[in-house]
Amino acid sequence: MKGKVQPKTLPGFMELLPNEQILFNKMKETIQKSYEKYGFLPLDTPIIEDANVLLAKAGGETEKQIYRFEKGENDLALRFDLTVPLAKYVTEYYDKLSFPFKRYQIGKVYRGEKPQRGRYREFYQCDVDIIGDGKLSIINDAEIPSIIYNTFKKLGFDEFTICINNRKILNGLFLSLKLENESAEILRIIDKIDKIGAEEVKNELLKNIEIEKVETIMRFIAIDGNNDNKIKSLEELNIDNEVFQEGLGELKQLIKFIKIFGVPENNFKIDLTIARGLDYYTGTVYETFLDKYRNLGSVCSGGRYDNLAEYYTDRKMPGVGISIGLSRLFFQLVDNKIISAEDQSISNVLIVSMTDNYDMCADIARKLRDNNLNVQINIEEQKLGKKFKYADNLNVKYVIIIGEDEIKNNVITLKNMFTGEQNTLTFEDAVKIIKETN
Amino acid sequence: MKGKVQPKTLPGFMELLPNEQILFNKMKETIQKSYEKYGFLPLDTPIIEDANVLLAKAGGETEKQIYRFEKGENDLALRFDLTVPLAKYVTEYYDKLSFPFKRYQIGKVYRGEKPQRGRYREFYQCDVDIIGDGKLSIINDAEIPSIIYNTFKKLGFDEFTICINNRKILNGLFLSLKLENESAEILRIIDKIDKIGAEEVKNELLKNIEIEKVETIMRFIAIDGNNDNKIKSLEELNIDNEVFQEGLGELKQLIKFIKIFGVPENNFKIDLTIARGLDYYTGTVYETFLDKYRNLGSVCSGGRYDNLAEYYTDRKMPGVGISIGLSRLFFQLVDNKIISAEDQSISNVLIVSMTDNYDMCADIARKLRDNNLNVQINIEEQKLGKKFKYADNLNVKYVIIIGEDEIKNNVITLKNMFTGEQNTLTFEDAVKIIKETN
Repeated sequence: MKGKVQPKTLPGFMELLPNEQILFNKMKETIQKSYEKYGFLPLDTPIIEDANVLLAKAGGETEKQIYRFEKGENDLALRFDLTVPLAKYVTEYYDKLSFPFKRYQIGKVYRGEKPQRGRYREFYQCDVDIIGDGKLSIINDAEIPSIIYNTFKKLGFDEFTICINNRKILNGLFLSLKLENESAEILRIIDKIDKIGAEEVKNELLKNIEIEKVETIMRFIAIDGNNDNKIKSLEELNIDNEVFQEGLGELKQLIKFIKIFGVPENNFKIDLTIARGLDYYTGTVYETFLDKYRNLGSVCSGGRYDNLAEYYTDRKMPGVGISIGLSRLFFQLVDNKIISAEDQSISNVLIVSMTDNYDMCADIARKLRDNNLNVQINIEEQKLGKKFKYADNLNVKYVIIIGEDEIKNNVITLKNMFTGEQNTLTFEDAVKIIKETN
Repeated sequence: MKGKVQPKTLPGFMELLPNEQILFNKMKETIQKSYEKYGFLPLDTPIIEDANVLLAKAGGETEKQIYRFEKGENDLALRFDLTVPLAKYVTEYYDKLSFPFKRYQIGKVYRGEKPQRGRYREFYQCDVDIIGDGKLSIINDAEIPSIIYNTFKKLGFDEFTICINNRKILNGLFLSLKLENESAEILRIIDKIDKIGAEEVKNELLKNIEIEKVETIMRFIAIDGNNDNKIKSLEELNIDNEVFQEGLGELKQLIKFIKIFGVPENNFKIDLTIARGLDYYTGTVYETFLDKYRNLGSVCSGGRYDNLAEYYTDRKMPGVGISIGLSRLFFQLVDNKIISAEDQSISNVLIVSMTDNYDMCADIARKLRDNNLNVQINIEEQKLGKKFKYADNLNVKYVIIIGEDEIKNNVITLKNMFTGEQNTLTFEDAVKIIKETN
């Protein structure tokens, strides 16, 4: 290819084949429709923002990953999540919004991470958030698992667990033990329990912490049983700390309302070890795991935050929300063969003409489309075998063949590409078959 | 706001209020579904590409408008249309695609133009293209107006005209007159005909061109009447040029098949004056005008090109396609009050609890959602009047009120917010009313 530019997509940027894209779009649409069922309003903020606005809150690792550049006199950046644009939005349009403001946004975000298998630099996030003006009832936190539950059910999953915790419980525990400054280190040690066992964790903790305190921590992390048992055990710890008791109270109310909102008992549980985003979340936190594929990590996470837009306004706006990282989830599901795009198609029918007379083809295409079917007319001059091959490649189930006989007798020949069955029928009978078995 | 960053969206970047976004998304989805009806496959290429790949073909004005920047060692650029990424895609994945390759893509593109009213730096394009491998039948060109027609019908328009021309006719005319080098200047003069009249155009042309040639040009631009008359007049010009005759032949075939594909006579016409993208298109060209709002300019344009990916490959891939600039179109339609987002809402029903008992609210919400309705539960502690105001602000048509009486008698109170009518009913009767009148 002399003098030609080599066409290539950048590493870390997902680009799908059409059949994969069909499946991806179906999942995206399922999530969107599910979010809308709960009355969330759509937003679509710009991908490019003023760098100073976007990075008002950022720092550290985030700032390094950001795509930031100048254009003319403008210092610009690509959004790295959908939460900062939401904070900007609710502050900028505060007077025109109604609170609680429920919004969903599904869009691409950008992080210049080191490209790895299944880690993308451009990826979709699918977020819902409920933002209060000044205050926001804890019952909102209980509706979130219902949204997660219904969304993953609609995506075709049955066996998944929404894990729930409240940051105040851990914070309160450490406060009561006067270990709040050591909390990160303690959590790091606790995190190893699956690998090294409870005894080793205890020994490590004892290196720097008094025995009584370590024993309280060990009693805390040993809490087990069903949700009611866990609540009871937390009460029995008798932690004399306001933050702890507040978190426990919220968790109790949350569990009660999650049941009322219809999430089955085996799809959610209290998990006192999850502690996402230490800095960001201030109350309820959620993580969601596919039971058979826990190794995939959380497929839907989020939580409650006290103050969404503090970098933009003095107005206090508490919120609660979740996010599905769709690009990564899609990659994982395909990679683990949990879903497959192999048989995906857009068209229900491919119409093939055996003559130069396209009148009947066009007429049938129009009528089928009026019947809410997706229909492609094969127009190219090709042999019939090549046309069938084309239908095959596109996974189209039905081919309609229009030749001289069909035109003369006002019938059509319908071939089921999956079974090979071929029949000559009236249009009405053909439509019935196509719609029935589609 | 001491120490706070002022949240602001960049000029030239569209950001809508929720009700506007609902309407925008409906239009986007209508276009998507319409494209899928014709069997176009979805694509979603990255917004960021390697600058050398993206700019292989670009130059001049485009290059100046591009968002181009470095990240690490990478020279990156944001896509400025969806055609170059398509050229990249079909070359990169050639072996995995089936031709003719029909794809749609709906996505944001970026051009750092001077921001003006209704001109955006980030805007949606909604494209369909049909790409052939080596060749592509002219009948594909005839299916395009059918796609335009059905898409704009579904968008709610009746009075619009798809204007059709063939670049070869103008090119051939100029070639036959040996004026091919003056073509741009001649077109510029012809373009003024609405303002200055035919006589003045003739006088201007006569300054540099012989009288016989000017008379041929004047006969050409005077061609009028219905499509068949225009074809006849073009034939009667007796232009002895291969390119002209080829274009005329294509146009004749095109008009015949457009009718067969079901576009009504008053929604399309030959317009010999349209000549979009002199460099890019090589045959058929399309522009679409809303009859009552011709001043908006073309709302859907496109054409046939001989060679999509010549900067990437020696393989010849002819194509034909169209694009709807949705962001600009949406702005124009709202700005001219042709559409209004005022009454748009996501939720069909808002459920309001008058007690602390949410069991029945949650139960009803679940059942309504199962009935394919979008339902929001109002959870905040507010007075009833404030809850009604909230429903009003969100344009929600129905409010369901659950108080002690409703729980006791297992009924619901349904208020139609548009009429003010309020009734206490069984759940089943309420669902019937909501679904009937929605």
